[in-house]
Amino acid sequence: MGVEFLKGHGTENDFVLLPDPDGLLDLTESRVRALCDRQRGLGADGVLRVVRPDFGPWFMDYRNADGSIAEMCGNGVRVFARYLVEAGLVPLGEFAVGTRAGQRGITAHEDGTVTADMGPARVTGTSSARVGGVEFAGVAVNVGNPHLACLTETPVASLDLRDQPAHDPAVFPQGVNVEFVNVLGDGALRMRVHERGVGETRSCGTGTVATVAAWLHSTGQRTGKATVDVLGGQVTVVVEEESSTLTGPAVLLARGELDQAWWDAL
Amino acid sequence: MGVEFLKGHGTENDFVLLPDPDGLLDLTESRVRALCDRQRGLGADGVLRVVRPDFGPWFMDYRNADGSIAEMCGNGVRVFARYLVEAGLVPLGEFAVGTRAGQRGITAHEDGTVTADMGPARVTGTSSARVGGVEFAGVAVNVGNPHLACLTETPVASLDLRDQPAHDPAVFPQGVNVEFVNVLGDGALRMRVHERGVGETRSCGTGTVATVAAWLHSTGQRTGKATVDVLGGQVTVVVEEESSTLTGPAVLLARGELDQAWWDAL
Repeated sequence: MGVEFLKGHGTENDFVLLPDPDGLLDLTESRVRALCDRQRGLGADGVLRVVRPDFGPWFMDYRNADGSIAEMCGNGVRVFARYLVEAGLVPLGEFAVGTRAGQRGITAHEDGTVTADMGPARVTGTSSARVGGVEFAGVAVNVGNPHLACLTETPVASLDLRDQPAHDPAVFPQGVNVEFVNVLGDGALRMRVHERGVGETRSCGTGTVATVAAWLHSTGQRTGKATVDVLGGQVTVVVEEESSTLTGPAVLLARGELDQAWWDAL
Repeated sequence: MGVEFLKGHGTENDFVLLPDPDGLLDLTESRVRALCDRQRGLGADGVLRVVRPDFGPWFMDYRNADGSIAEMCGNGVRVFARYLVEAGLVPLGEFAVGTRAGQRGITAHEDGTVTADMGPARVTGTSSARVGGVEFAGVAVNVGNPHLACLTETPVASLDLRDQPAHDPAVFPQGVNVEFVNVLGDGALRMRVHERGVGETRSCGTGTVATVAAWLHSTGQRTGKATVDVLGGQVTVVVEEESSTLTGPAVLLARGELDQAWWDAL
């Protein structure tokens, strides 16, 4: 018997889940990198280790594809919650999940979608990004991590986001996730995102929250709700004064075992 | 119980294997595309369906990631052979595998590497490709599919291969796979490859054969042997007058089941 895994995604932000209730797995950086490598491993944006602590709710030990530790991941926690429900570890409805950013409130819906508490989205100023020699004005939003959400009338489908958009290092000394956003209608947005250190991704949970916060800001509102079409599907974001939520699909498509010799050699 | 699968790779050319001895799976194009999608599926360069025909050897039903049918795949047939051995369906050593390009001779070695007969590699002329405004002279080689292998002193690691290299449509009316090759020493080559319709890949079996044939051609030889370093590892190619072989690692790293509801909905 090898190491148990599942593969899932939330709007095509994808994850390898490692059920490890008793915390027995030695999840090294090199193992995370190999698991997430899309050619030599299973391939994923990150790993979600499923741990049962002595006290409190199930804990999401999230790792980025490069092996580093991350505090939270909005799409990841939704997929994690879906697993807890499908495995019979928690009932449908409302429950909490532990993360390095603290406990997050979850609602797992009957239709398979999951709502996750994303914490506050704080508009911190304005800045700009350059893509292909063109400058895009944006709103800086902190959702636990830094974002620059650029509302534009240029169709986002036309942008070449293979390189990191140029940005102001004085405003974003630790880099920034950059969203390009079209307003499709009232409360209906389309977004593409370049994640710092990763590249373009098919979805980014905090990015969709930043996108809606920036759109609300542009219309003089502080709270509200919008759908966000991303490359990987559609989510719904609600922004309130001191919190926000992200709702969308969470899919588990495969489960199995990693070859033990492969795992041991990593 | 869902649909059984395995995930494997040969020098990081990666595949989903679907054991289907009795040919019961309804493997539609949309299912192949979803399986190979690296975010919403398992992710792979192609699917290898494992079929037991009424007569003759185990048959590799190979599909490209876009759902189309392919005749042969040099790294794929090596991973396929490795599965046959690990599953106990054939013994270690020499055996044949059926493909749409006919039966291929295989040798599965004790160290986990596999040698596959790749058929003849025919030098058909010369042409050139352009990358980043720079022209590279190359040798046209047919290995069942068309290749242009460009030996260059420009370090291949420095090339930007994100776009299809420009080539002469009069020479390659159906497109071409383009290799860029550094000679590291006698019988030691390094290659990067842009596969037509796919983009850069970490390995390409026929591309390594074309690379060695082009190198031999450049030294006035018609037969010989060389190692080829690709992004995903190293293979050894032997080119003879009327045949060639490809030897390299073949890894099976995971096995499990696809979610039946996910599969049925595709």
